[in-house]
Amino acid sequence: MNLVERLKEVIPEDRISTNETVLLNHSKDESFYSGNLPDVVVFPKDKQEVAEIVRLANELEVPIVPFGTGSGLEGQVIPKQGGISIDFQEMNKILEINDEDLLVTVQPGVTRVQLNAELGKYGLFFPVDPGADASLGGMASTNASGTTTVRYGAMKDNVRDLEVVLADGRLIHTGSRAKKSSSGYRLTELFVGSEGTLGVFTELTLQVYGISEVIVAARAVFNSIQNAVQAATSLLAIGVPIARIELVEAYSIKHMNLAAGTNYLEDVTLFLEFHGTDKSVEGELEITKDLFEDFGCYQFDIEKDSLGRAKLWEVRHNSLNIWLHHNPGKRVMNTDVCVPLSKLADAVEYSRTCLDESKLQGSIIGHIGDGNFHVGIILDPNDAEEMKKAHRLNEQIVHFALAAGGTCTGEHGVGLGKMKYQEQEHGTALDVMKTIKQALDPNQILNPGKIFVENSN
Amino acid sequence: MNLVERLKEVIPEDRISTNETVLLNHSKDESFYSGNLPDVVVFPKDKQEVAEIVRLANELEVPIVPFGTGSGLEGQVIPKQGGISIDFQEMNKILEINDEDLLVTVQPGVTRVQLNAELGKYGLFFPVDPGADASLGGMASTNASGTTTVRYGAMKDNVRDLEVVLADGRLIHTGSRAKKSSSGYRLTELFVGSEGTLGVFTELTLQVYGISEVIVAARAVFNSIQNAVQAATSLLAIGVPIARIELVEAYSIKHMNLAAGTNYLEDVTLFLEFHGTDKSVEGELEITKDLFEDFGCYQFDIEKDSLGRAKLWEVRHNSLNIWLHHNPGKRVMNTDVCVPLSKLADAVEYSRTCLDESKLQGSIIGHIGDGNFHVGIILDPNDAEEMKKAHRLNEQIVHFALAAGGTCTGEHGVGLGKMKYQEQEHGTALDVMKTIKQALDPNQILNPGKIFVENSN
Repeated sequence: MNLVERLKEVIPEDRISTNETVLLNHSKDESFYSGNLPDVVVFPKDKQEVAEIVRLANELEVPIVPFGTGSGLEGQVIPKQGGISIDFQEMNKILEINDEDLLVTVQPGVTRVQLNAELGKYGLFFPVDPGADASLGGMASTNASGTTTVRYGAMKDNVRDLEVVLADGRLIHTGSRAKKSSSGYRLTELFVGSEGTLGVFTELTLQVYGISEVIVAARAVFNSIQNAVQAATSLLAIGVPIARIELVEAYSIKHMNLAAGTNYLEDVTLFLEFHGTDKSVEGELEITKDLFEDFGCYQFDIEKDSLGRAKLWEVRHNSLNIWLHHNPGKRVMNTDVCVPLSKLADAVEYSRTCLDESKLQGSIIGHIGDGNFHVGIILDPNDAEEMKKAHRLNEQIVHFALAAGGTCTGEHGVGLGKMKYQEQEHGTALDVMKTIKQALDPNQILNPGKIFVENSN
Repeated sequence: MNLVERLKEVIPEDRISTNETVLLNHSKDESFYSGNLPDVVVFPKDKQEVAEIVRLANELEVPIVPFGTGSGLEGQVIPKQGGISIDFQEMNKILEINDEDLLVTVQPGVTRVQLNAELGKYGLFFPVDPGADASLGGMASTNASGTTTVRYGAMKDNVRDLEVVLADGRLIHTGSRAKKSSSGYRLTELFVGSEGTLGVFTELTLQVYGISEVIVAARAVFNSIQNAVQAATSLLAIGVPIARIELVEAYSIKHMNLAAGTNYLEDVTLFLEFHGTDKSVEGELEITKDLFEDFGCYQFDIEKDSLGRAKLWEVRHNSLNIWLHHNPGKRVMNTDVCVPLSKLADAVEYSRTCLDESKLQGSIIGHIGDGNFHVGIILDPNDAEEMKKAHRLNEQIVHFALAAGGTCTGEHGVGLGKMKYQEQEHGTALDVMKTIKQALDPNQILNPGKIFVENSN
C-alpha cells in the first residue's frame, strides 16, 4: 500500500494532496536554496490528526516537514528528502486569550498579524515581529525575533508552553502556564528553535503584553557607526527600557529616501521607539537625547503621532521591498549574524567594506540592541557570478562574527544555509545536540537534512 | 586501588579530603532532608581538574555531586548515593568584566554578593537575588530567581553561556557571547536548572545591568489579597517596567513589625521598587499610585533615600530570620509554587486557610509579578507531628498549584522534595527528560537520585 493510501487511514482524503501545484508550493520558501518536492501534502485540522500522521510516518520511516506560511529565509521547510509536508493552514485558531494572565493559546497556523488584530481588541499585543507575516508555529521553530526583541525578547522568551507531537506520535507539553519554573528540564527552550527536527508543534501558549498608553518614535542621526553603536550601548547600560533601537547605515538611508520618497539625512541613523506613560516616555526621551549628544548625535527627530510613527517604521521595514519594486528581476539575500555589542560597530563596518569590495549592491540594517544585523544583498538570482559573490560575502561576515564570539544566525535559523558553520560555532556541543536528536528521533523522520550536515542527502 | 588513590592521579592530595567534618559539611544543605555522606570531597582549582575528576568518576561509575555554598533548599547537593562531592570554593574567580558587552565570566564558586561587590565598581549589577548568598554555579543549576525577576528575569534569562564538563569528561560551551541566536539547539537553557544531573559547570558567562540613576522603593497597603493582586496584574499589563513587586500578607507584616521593630500597617502590602531616571521613575510612581487607588490601596509610602530603601528591603528579606532569632530551636520550611497570575490571589488565600487549619505558624511572601510565592512554615524540626503537618500543607499547596496550571517549584528546584510531583506536572514530557538524561549520562554518575524518582536509592 502506498503512502497516500496509508494516509487516508488517518486523515480525510480531501485534505491530502499530491496536486503538482500544491507540491511545488511546498517545495521551497523565501530563500535561494533549490527546492525539492514533497511526496504528499496534508492539511490536518487538529492535534490528533497530526499525531496520527507522525506516528504513521515513523512506522513507514518517511520524512515529515512542518509547513507554516513558507516565509522562512533558510530553507527550513524544504523537504530535502521528500516525504510528507504538514501544512498548518487549517490549524489557524486562536484558542484562548487570557488578559489577566497575559497569555494566549494558539494553533501553529495562526500568523502574527492575525493574532495582533485579535489582541488589539483587548489592548494587548504580541511583540515578536520578523519581517514577514509568519505563522507562530514557524516563528517558534526558528526562534524568530525582530525589532522589539531588545525590550520584549525573542520567541524563546515569549513561548510559555508548547504542545508537541514527538517522533513516535506521543503528545507532550513542554511547560506550564506559570511565568517561571525550576521544575525538571527546560524543554520549551529546547524545542523552540529546533526547526521541526525534534517534534511537531500543535499548540503554543504565548506571553502577550499590554499596549502602552504612550508610544513615541524617533530618529537620531550620527556621523559614524562607532558613535551610533556606542550611544546605543550606553543607553542600554543605564537601563532605559527602550522598545526598539534599529541601526541603519548611511548608504541604506539613501535607499530608503529613493524608495519611499522621504528626505531623511543620509547619515548613520538610529530608529527608536519608546513605550510607556506620558511621564516615563518624556523622561526617557530627554535622557536619550542628552546622552546621544555626547556621542555626536546631530539630529534628533521625534514622531509623536501614530501616522508619523507608522510612516517611520514602514520606511524602515519596507525600504528594500520598495527598492526591489523599482528593480524587477532583483531579489534580496540576507545575512543574519549576531555579535557581542562591543564588536558590533567593527562588524558593521567590516561588512560594509566587504560589500563595497564585492561590487554588489546592498543595505545594512541592524537590531542594534541585540547585536544582530542584516546585510541585504540585492542581486539577480540567475546571475551565477553575483550569487557566488553573495555567498562569499555571507561567508566573510559569518567568519568575522564567529571570531568575535558571536553566532552565524541571530534570528533566521540554521536551515540549510548555516549547517556548514555549526561545527565551527558549537564545537563539541554539536555532538550533544546530535545525541539529543538521535535519542528523540531515532528513525530520523523529523525534518531530516536540516541543522546537522550528516543528515543531508 | 581505591577511589582516593585514583583521585590523587588527577588532583593534588591536599585538595582531596575524607576528613569527617568535611564529609559532614558536604552531606546536606539548608533543607530538612536527611543528609548522606559523600565518600570523598575534592576542591578542584580549574576546569581541567574538574574534567579529569568527572572522567575518572565515569570510568569507575562513581556518583559525583557539585557543591557550591550548600545554601540550597531542596537537597540538591546531598550525595544520596555517596561518591565524590566536588566543592567549587577554590574556583571562585571573576575572570572577566566587560562593561561594553554587559557580560561577566565567572567560575562557578563565585557568590552573588562577591560578584556584585566587584560589579559595583563599574556601575553594574547582577540582578538575580535568591535569599542566600549562593554560588553562581549553584544558582544556574537550580534556575534560581528572586525579587527582581519580574523585570530582569531568572537565571535562565541571564546566563549567556555555560562551560560544562559532560559525563565523559568532555568540555563544551552551550552558548556564545551573542545576545540572541537561532543557531542549533538551545543547550544553555537545557543545562540551566538541570541540578547537576546533565553536566558540571566550570564557567558561566552572565548578563549584567547598569545600576539605574534613580532607585525608589515604596510600600502600598490594600485591604484584600484579591485587590493587591489585581492591582499588581494591572500594573504589569500596562507595561510599567517595575523592578520589584513583592506581596506580603497581613499576618506576615505583623511578623515583620515584631521582628524588625517597624510599625507598618498590618494589612496586605506590596513592596515595590522602581529603577530608572528622575523623570521615568516619577512618571511610574504617579501612574502606579493612581492605578492602585482604583484597587483600594489606602496607603502608599515612598522611600527615596537609600537608607530608607535598604531598611525596607532588609525587613522584607530578613523578617523570618529575625523572627527565628527570637524563637530558638525553630526553623523555616518553605513552599515554592508558581501559578498563573489569575490564580495567584486564590492560591495565596487557599494557602493561608490551609496554614491556619494546620495550626502551624507561618508567613506568606510572594514574588507577585511572577506568580511565585512562599509559605514560610515555622516549625521545630524535631517535632514529628509538626513536620508531618508541614509536609501535608506543602502537598496541599502543590496540588492547588498544579491544578491551576502552575508548577511545584518556581525557583528552588526539584532536588529531593519535588521529585514526587514531576510525573503529575510533566506527564509524558518527563519521559523526554529521562531520555535526554539517559543519552547524556548513560552511567548515571551525575547527581543520581535527583529530579527523577527511579534513580533514587
